[in-house]
Amino acid sequence: AQLALERDYEAQRDSDTRLRVLMESTDDAVAFVSLASGRVSELNATAASILGQAAGDLVGSAFSDLFQGDGQRDVIERLTDPDRADQRGPVEMTARKTGRPVAVTPRVFRAAGERMLFCRMAEIGPAGTGSDALT
Amino acid sequence: AQLALERDYEAQRDSDTRLRVLMESTDDAVAFVSLASGRVSELNATAASILGQAAGDLVGSAFSDLFQGDGQRDVIERLTDPDRADQRGPVEMTARKTGRPVAVTPRVFRAAGERMLFCRMAEIGPAGTGSDALT
Repeated sequence: AQLALERDYEAQRDSDTRLRVLMESTDDAVAFVSLASGRVSELNATAASILGQAAGDLVGSAFSDLFQGDGQRDVIERLTDPDRADQRGPVEMTARKTGRPVAVTPRVFRAAGERMLFCRMAEIGPAGTGSDALT
Repeated sequence: AQLALERDYEAQRDSDTRLRVLMESTDDAVAFVSLASGRVSELNATAASILGQAAGDLVGSAFSDLFQGDGQRDVIERLTDPDRADQRGPVEMTARKTGRPVAVTPRVFRAAGERMLFCRMAEIGPAGTGSDALT
């Protein structure tokens, strides 16, 4: 049992490290949000930059607070609406801190028994200021 | 001990799942290579497409076989040369299967006591065929 524990621990550190390397290396702005708490679980520097705050301040913060509401529905509700389950494209939001438009592509998944929201984000703007314009 | 085992197992599944979601969602072509074996450990569909083969065929294959050699050094040696440790830019290679040029940005890291190579790849070509041209 001890050997299994150590092996599992090593394997976990392997996935943790690979995840961190990938998040740090990708040009994409990405974030993981816990749907149980509505809070940012982890995100990369590119995402923090788009949201206009330091990554350390963003981890643990309420994800919905980071975007302007539309006066009707909560940000997370908009992103996880089952009616948009067939739509793969991004949702246009406005980052609260910067006031700038951001295209958010959500994906809901389950990990370790918990529902999570993965978001890829891209600034929307004139050519040259954001390579992932809404298509 | 049993509870710890289950908790560690759940946590590992969490990182594994997040890693998989990120690899499937990113537009980047990415691969992890074991430096102990020289073999592809995992990669995403975008990377498989650039390399011109099915992802299932690529996992476990010798990474150096996937690129044309330069007649002098092994592909992995070129990518992990300590003399280029200060250089962050990509290395231009040619995918063996497609004959097309590919920019490979390597990053060596250690996970679970093992040295790994992370590669981000991008096709090099005229405007419109690869957004990550060598800069």
